[in-house]
Amino acid sequence: MTRPIAFAPRDSVEAVEEGLTLAPRFGADGLMPCVTVDAVSGAVLMLGWMDEAALRLTLNTGEAHYWSRSRRAIWRKGAVSGLTQRVVEARIDDDQDALLLRVAVSGSGASCHVGYRSCFYRRIEADGALAFVETDKLFDPKTAYGDLPNPTQL
Amino acid sequence: MTRPIAFAPRDSVEAVEEGLTLAPRFGADGLMPCVTVDAVSGAVLMLGWMDEAALRLTLNTGEAHYWSRSRRAIWRKGAVSGLTQRVVEARIDDDQDALLLRVAVSGSGASCHVGYRSCFYRRIEADGALAFVETDKLFDPKTAYGDLPNPTQL
Repeated sequence: MTRPIAFAPRDSVEAVEEGLTLAPRFGADGLMPCVTVDAVSGAVLMLGWMDEAALRLTLNTGEAHYWSRSRRAIWRKGAVSGLTQRVVEARIDDDQDALLLRVAVSGSGASCHVGYRSCFYRRIEADGALAFVETDKLFDPKTAYGDLPNPTQL
Repeated sequence: MTRPIAFAPRDSVEAVEEGLTLAPRFGADGLMPCVTVDAVSGAVLMLGWMDEAALRLTLNTGEAHYWSRSRRAIWRKGAVSGLTQRVVEARIDDDQDALLLRVAVSGSGASCHVGYRSCFYRRIEADGALAFVETDKLFDPKTAYGDLPNPTQL
């Protein structure tokens, strides 16, 4: 049983920006964006969202947890696919309203539900068209997720 | 005069995830998160927000523009400090609701208004305390910003 991490009050800009206490600020929807990168290569893998419970679970267990906006539920990354993310380091930004996780991904190393290593597998060209920067999927989503609903919302 | 980039309709999950047309999805607040990294080192510099106008300005000018949630205005990064961000590559994620910019930062190379290279200059320790991972500021915010209001909100 881990002792709950205390969140500090946001009393002053100086304490939030230059202090040594965790004083996170969640948005009006209760969520905070989290940038997740590969701990070795530094490559950006995904942009996820955390509510307070997901942040506490991530810090207490050392496994990345997010809030799924499509399923409206806490989501232990890799619970279905097996592609879990072990937290090597967690960081927070200047005004403490965004997170950065450096992770080690299990198995194939993929973090994107479409099958690619990174969710950012397409670049935007000058004319606005997209071009793939990853060409090979690391796993087959159909095999990994079966008939589960796709999280992408239109 | 640049021809406006056309945004495609979000007709199908397959087109959004695997297609070659830009079909961005902004949140209920009209904003989309943007992860900005150093184009050479890959280091995560900041997490910013873009509305549709900021995204169009960024793509059309090749200079990073964001939406300032504290000032409620479009913000050309570096307009005051001179620390502009030239876009080397822009990417979008699987469901097209998050952006990734790879940038070259001018001058000292700092992107954080507190003076550090990255906004993510503190890690979260096991007990929830914060520890600095950057020790030296690259510029003096007082000199760069004078009496302008600090964007951090409590």
